[in-house]
Amino acid sequence: MQRVLVTGAAGFIGSNLVDRLLADGYEVVGYDNFSTGQRRFLVDANASPRFSMVEGDLLDQPALGAAMKAVDTVFHLSANADIRFGTLHPRRDLDQNTIATFNVLEAMRANEVKRIAFSSTGSVYGEAKVIPTPEDAPFPVQTSLYGASKLAGEGLIAAYCEGYEMQGVVFRFVSILGERYTHGHVFDFVHKLQQDPTKLSVLGNGQQRKSYLYVQDCIDAVLFGMKNSQDRFSIYNLGTDEYCQVSDSIDWICQKLGLAPCLQYSGGDRGWIGDNPFILLDCQKIRALGWKPTLTIREGVERTVDYLRGNGWVFEARN
Amino acid sequence: MQRVLVTGAAGFIGSNLVDRLLADGYEVVGYDNFSTGQRRFLVDANASPRFSMVEGDLLDQPALGAAMKAVDTVFHLSANADIRFGTLHPRRDLDQNTIATFNVLEAMRANEVKRIAFSSTGSVYGEAKVIPTPEDAPFPVQTSLYGASKLAGEGLIAAYCEGYEMQGVVFRFVSILGERYTHGHVFDFVHKLQQDPTKLSVLGNGQQRKSYLYVQDCIDAVLFGMKNSQDRFSIYNLGTDEYCQVSDSIDWICQKLGLAPCLQYSGGDRGWIGDNPFILLDCQKIRALGWKPTLTIREGVERTVDYLRGNGWVFEARN
Repeated sequence: MQRVLVTGAAGFIGSNLVDRLLADGYEVVGYDNFSTGQRRFLVDANASPRFSMVEGDLLDQPALGAAMKAVDTVFHLSANADIRFGTLHPRRDLDQNTIATFNVLEAMRANEVKRIAFSSTGSVYGEAKVIPTPEDAPFPVQTSLYGASKLAGEGLIAAYCEGYEMQGVVFRFVSILGERYTHGHVFDFVHKLQQDPTKLSVLGNGQQRKSYLYVQDCIDAVLFGMKNSQDRFSIYNLGTDEYCQVSDSIDWICQKLGLAPCLQYSGGDRGWIGDNPFILLDCQKIRALGWKPTLTIREGVERTVDYLRGNGWVFEARN
Repeated sequence: MQRVLVTGAAGFIGSNLVDRLLADGYEVVGYDNFSTGQRRFLVDANASPRFSMVEGDLLDQPALGAAMKAVDTVFHLSANADIRFGTLHPRRDLDQNTIATFNVLEAMRANEVKRIAFSSTGSVYGEAKVIPTPEDAPFPVQTSLYGASKLAGEGLIAAYCEGYEMQGVVFRFVSILGERYTHGHVFDFVHKLQQDPTKLSVLGNGQQRKSYLYVQDCIDAVLFGMKNSQDRFSIYNLGTDEYCQVSDSIDWICQKLGLAPCLQYSGGDRGWIGDNPFILLDCQKIRALGWKPTLTIREGVERTVDYLRGNGWVFEARN
């Protein structure tokens, strides 16, 4: 039986991946420090005899090395995913994304683990000159510490694959939505509307164009990409072929909640320093392999609202 | 008077830059841990009342922060430049290139230093698909830990420029040659031929095509780029418009030394894991500003041989 390790196993995407891997028959080692991960996301996983959980930090090299024993493949999903407040604590992206990825690779090397899947981000394209943006877009300029730290992680993985004959598959995600979603604009908007249904303050002018992908579609794509990639190092964009404006998303959320709040836009074409006013990835490469998303962005947003309404505890857990 | 800080001030390129900056009238703070830098390279600089030297490590944040006081511009040249043996000690590139650059940026932020020049490398292009390779070449795949660590440094600088309103200028160097050259193929070949003039072992098949630039031309370009860049973040390739084969370079070295050794090629199209068999950068961007190199590659190689013959102590110092 294949034994895999998932970093960030208690997180939004990580815990959904753990459940899927267990359903598919894998033996799964979860690794998480529960700094943002939630124990409640692992209730199903904990019921499986094929699941074991290691509570540890990726900056703790001995613990990580011990967890990696007899593992075939690492799904490295753990990250500081807080792109917006990066400039308030610049060390966090370096530690949790770049150095953490180095530690994962070193633990793999010490334990002769040869395959890694990595959750990177469309943010590595900065403000892309080519939209939809393909994987081989012109060499980008970084606009966020988050993007820079993920690009550094990608570079480390590529160099390890070349230097130590590992196999790496990098997935550049758009924003992911769905069950167990615990941060991002839908989270913030639903939370604010619960506190005051009459008005909603919005960063920027509402015209930022963004692409989103439903978490189960994302997981399908990751497993699909891992199964179908033979090269030493591969990169796939993951997203839908559509985008929406922030204002569209607000409409869908409000309709779903049956609310008609007064909207207060802060103005400007971006919500924060380093915000990218237009994200749309060219996903032809992974689609050519046969994968395609099952939900539209609107359906993903609506399913996320449903999840948040049924799981109010996540707002408390994140505060 | 402008006060600047040079990291790697006792190194090959750094010490030449220090001398030039002093000649141009700047007040210069040198920063170096002398792990590979040479005190003898600073003899001229030490004679200037406008030069002060701080012996410190870039991983020592308090020392670095203290050195950065009242500085206008940082020339960040310190690096682990040993590309070939990266896989023997992968932590070194992370520490000395990526984390060191983060520390430089944090020290700048703490001291409100707003401008940085950074010595990056053509290695960030990996095995480039477009040759000559322009700055906006297709998004590359890293093939060395050195390239990956420098790419990470570039990304950090770009994100800091965006997030904290600094100005950054990144220079992607080809291999640099000339006075105070203390590592690289000319160094290795001259050293080996001093020990045994009858034969020379060469990594690869001798057909790797590489580009080189003379150190004084490199320094001209860096100062030129800093003077003429107004954007928040700029990138310039630095090289000549020509390349040579390793075997050409060997011919020039042997002619200069009056030797005709037996050549023993190890074979294969690259010298080591991650070696790039063809490096040629498109330098039109900096040339369009008016800069051009004064020496050909051959002249640069010959001047390097002259330097090494007159300064045999550098072979001892590096051993």
